[in-house]
Amino acid sequence: MGGIGGVPFVGKTGFSAFSHHVPTEGHLLILFGPHIAISSSGELGKYMREGQDDESTACGAVLAAYSACCADHAQAERSFLGKSYREMLDVDDMQQSFLKEKVGQRFDAINGASEPLDALIHEAYQVVEDQMLSVINFDYGDGKIVLVGGVQINMPQPHQDHFQPLYFKALSGDSPVGVDLMSNFRYSGN
Amino acid sequence: MGGIGGVPFVGKTGFSAFSHHVPTEGHLLILFGPHIAISSSGELGKYMREGQDDESTACGAVLAAYSACCADHAQAERSFLGKSYREMLDVDDMQQSFLKEKVGQRFDAINGASEPLDALIHEAYQVVEDQMLSVINFDYGDGKIVLVGGVQINMPQPHQDHFQPLYFKALSGDSPVGVDLMSNFRYSGN
Repeated sequence: MGGIGGVPFVGKTGFSAFSHHVPTEGHLLILFGPHIAISSSGELGKYMREGQDDESTACGAVLAAYSACCADHAQAERSFLGKSYREMLDVDDMQQSFLKEKVGQRFDAINGASEPLDALIHEAYQVVEDQMLSVINFDYGDGKIVLVGGVQINMPQPHQDHFQPLYFKALSGDSPVGVDLMSNFRYSGN
Repeated sequence: MGGIGGVPFVGKTGFSAFSHHVPTEGHLLILFGPHIAISSSGELGKYMREGQDDESTACGAVLAAYSACCADHAQAERSFLGKSYREMLDVDDMQQSFLKEKVGQRFDAINGASEPLDALIHEAYQVVEDQMLSVINFDYGDGKIVLVGGVQINMPQPHQDHFQPLYFKALSGDSPVGVDLMSNFRYSGN
């Protein structure tokens, strides 16, 4: 369902197409969220990709959107900050236009945080969650939609990737608000 | 890189993010295109999905865009036909808005064809090809981009899926127009 930044850009129609693949009386499990890397020196947003000689950014699109906002914010005359998606849209780059609009709307909170890239990826997570909840519906059948949201953390070799869960709910046509299951992720201490 | 209809909706930024995963001196091979199903009774655009009791449409999004165009065309006052993407855009369904705009621009040719759904999927193919050529670049290295485009044909059980090749080129920064390799797909008769 995704696209750059982990946003479910397939939209309402894409969700319908996807959910109509569910077998009769079947359920849906959707894992969603953006990702961020940590380099071997502990730097957020940097990753040494397999077969490459230099580190590159991850999530490249979210970090590029933030860089574009920083550059635009520093200019006397803004090129896109403050403009709506419809106004600043590049049709050959519609997903990045969306990310730039959303990061731009949260720019002051991100830029003022003690760890801007940590704030950035959690704001990006919220954008993904909002968009996921905007596009789902229960028209495909009586089954539940189980949503697991969070931030995927790409770790440097030889460590395995991690996932920070931020959302875990079972929703249905009868209970579209859903049942919160996040407590299942909490460490019981036993 | 895709989204509904097989269009590379990740755009310029998504292509850059994707292509920067290429190993040093590596090449890129991209298979692209829309898909259309054939039902067991030979009907275009219909498919019996595994675990389901009734046939559904495939490609659902392209066929839904065409249905929306047919419905809008039949109305005295058009709701979206003739409007630009920017005007008719639904931000929660941006990809389908794009498909509706593109199918709408080709509506007369599709509707007037002897096999409208065959014409539809080949017009959709052209939209995908145009968008693919709009978003690629050679900034990731010296490697080639090999593009294979066509229409994926989902066949009814027990037949295997088919692929109708329509584009096969090797492009590079030195030769962005590319070398046409389509003749490799032609049956030699031997």
